[in-house]
Amino acid sequence: MENALNLDTVKLAENKKEIVILDQTLLPNECKYLSISKAGDIWEAIYSLRVRGAPAIGVTGAYAYYVLADQIETEDKDKFVKECTEMMEYINSSRPTAVNLSWALNRMHDVMLTEKDHMNIPDLKVRLMKEADAIREEDIQISRNIGTYGFELLEKLGKGVGIMTHCNAGTLATAKYGTALAPMYIALEHGWDPKKDLHVYCDETRPLLQGARLSAYEMQAAGIDTYVQCDNMASYTMKGGKVGIIFVGCDRVAANGDFANKIGTSGVAIIAKHYGVPFYVCAPSSTIDMTLESGDEIHIEQRKAEEVTEMWYKERMAPEGVGVVNPAFDVTDHSLVTGIITEKGIAYEPFKESFEKMGIKPVEKYVDKK
Amino acid sequence: MENALNLDTVKLAENKKEIVILDQTLLPNECKYLSISKAGDIWEAIYSLRVRGAPAIGVTGAYAYYVLADQIETEDKDKFVKECTEMMEYINSSRPTAVNLSWALNRMHDVMLTEKDHMNIPDLKVRLMKEADAIREEDIQISRNIGTYGFELLEKLGKGVGIMTHCNAGTLATAKYGTALAPMYIALEHGWDPKKDLHVYCDETRPLLQGARLSAYEMQAAGIDTYVQCDNMASYTMKGGKVGIIFVGCDRVAANGDFANKIGTSGVAIIAKHYGVPFYVCAPSSTIDMTLESGDEIHIEQRKAEEVTEMWYKERMAPEGVGVVNPAFDVTDHSLVTGIITEKGIAYEPFKESFEKMGIKPVEKYVDKK
Repeated sequence: MENALNLDTVKLAENKKEIVILDQTLLPNECKYLSISKAGDIWEAIYSLRVRGAPAIGVTGAYAYYVLADQIETEDKDKFVKECTEMMEYINSSRPTAVNLSWALNRMHDVMLTEKDHMNIPDLKVRLMKEADAIREEDIQISRNIGTYGFELLEKLGKGVGIMTHCNAGTLATAKYGTALAPMYIALEHGWDPKKDLHVYCDETRPLLQGARLSAYEMQAAGIDTYVQCDNMASYTMKGGKVGIIFVGCDRVAANGDFANKIGTSGVAIIAKHYGVPFYVCAPSSTIDMTLESGDEIHIEQRKAEEVTEMWYKERMAPEGVGVVNPAFDVTDHSLVTGIITEKGIAYEPFKESFEKMGIKPVEKYVDKK
Repeated sequence: MENALNLDTVKLAENKKEIVILDQTLLPNECKYLSISKAGDIWEAIYSLRVRGAPAIGVTGAYAYYVLADQIETEDKDKFVKECTEMMEYINSSRPTAVNLSWALNRMHDVMLTEKDHMNIPDLKVRLMKEADAIREEDIQISRNIGTYGFELLEKLGKGVGIMTHCNAGTLATAKYGTALAPMYIALEHGWDPKKDLHVYCDETRPLLQGARLSAYEMQAAGIDTYVQCDNMASYTMKGGKVGIIFVGCDRVAANGDFANKIGTSGVAIIAKHYGVPFYVCAPSSTIDMTLESGDEIHIEQRKAEEVTEMWYKERMAPEGVGVVNPAFDVTDHSLVTGIITEKGIAYEPFKESFEKMGIKPVEKYVDKK
């Protein structure tokens, strides 16, 4: 099994015309890369979770902006701006909840709008490629920083700690290292013994099984003592005293610390509070949306019923025609959160003040206005 | 789709030599009955959850005792007693957590020991058959009573109420009606409109999917507005205000009201308390084990890893060799329980006193001594 840190989740192809993504829907059974360059294919890859994880979607969005802008054959700048705007709105519609997608698209669009007046279109295209590369490089550094802050928490708890996580916020969800799984990668860099010093419990994370398929794959590939559990076993494991800390990723954080993450996260947080287990959210600052006062304003994506009833199964697992609840995310109240780990430090209650001290500000948006 | 109340979960064959069970591992896609009479086949049917649900396992245990005793070819009563004892211990080992299995086996054994001195062995075998039939008939009446008490709670909440349940404690888990689903069957008998007056949310209940496969099947077959949700969506649904009450079954209740039920139940209870949703346990008094002071004394069955990682899937859903947590049950603390609905009434905190007032006492056990 290859060390997951050596897998490139998303990058620009050597020909600079295509995005290369690791198709995560095939893991852990197959490790296959896709090269895509059509808008429809990129939209589908994001929608179908071939590439997923808020930071990785952000990087994909940035490359999508460049690759699709590069295909616009015009020397008319007004036409170029118009087509870029339409393309950006289309790509942004692939997943509504994660803020990183719109964050990255907005950042690329900003660069385009700022630079267009003093660059010709070919130069502008090169400038956009460099910006997308920069977003990817920054993402790697952000993940390392989050991992380092998270590792400091593990050090306080001591070697042998049990860590629980939900969904996958690992290297597969970012350009490298991950957010919620980054502390474990950093611990290994500090010489912690993967079999003795770290015990990682991965919620399988129905319906799409990112925990069983991706987090368990990453952690096991890193040699760490790794367990898969059904989502409904989190209470059992915490009650048994096996969990010293919980790290989860997030898709969007409101100014008050409420955050959206993979469906089931709020239940884990409630159970963690019941048992007194510290619960940390790992959030690149690009995930923090200071324009939202609370989580009530976060739009939750509803997905199709067959993900729950038949998608993975040998045969249908629920009766035909039954109603299905299938929200992709839920919102966890900030009162359940011990701390929010960003690349700039760990934010604590009151979160809004804590974010402001870190210099996180509301940003102008071209897409994703509610 | 046939009304599930017309399905016989478990009964004696007309030839009086075999147990007929509905193979629940094939639902909802296939409705197939098995006729079994060998000890190994009965053990396997219980272990593999072809027949499952604490009360249904009790009825199966009673018929197993009769059918297997009937096969003992001897006129030597000491030998008969010895073989019955061995057989009883073997059948009891098929599932360690549900008390109903040992309860029914012990009751059958009591009858045998009491009657053997003044009956010949052929008459004793007939007596055992009648006792097993009586256990089945009583189970039906017990379920009706629990359903009636549960329906009174629904009436107080009013028509249109949302009900959440975990796993399957329906007619398929008992001889008829069920425990946690019985209130809905009784509501229909009282003329409630299945589409408008009742909305049932079924946790799918990983890893064996009893909620998706069985509860949703039963409730939908009864015409009720029914939804399947992944276990990790319970918090989302409760937060959305859709759930007025939660009914769950149970496999063993301790004197203090702690109870074991399908894995995930304790998480549902913790989340229900967080959102202020009333949480009721539906428990035939045979499930209440007054010899246990608390839930700490309940033995939790651990099951094999492949139930989580591959059993239902088109392909393996977690990496080879990863650790797997797979407890079949968890214990919910009595402090999270609003009330325990038995066939004798609803018990409230302090549960031990409440149980004693109902006349529930510790019983002598021949098997299942811890």
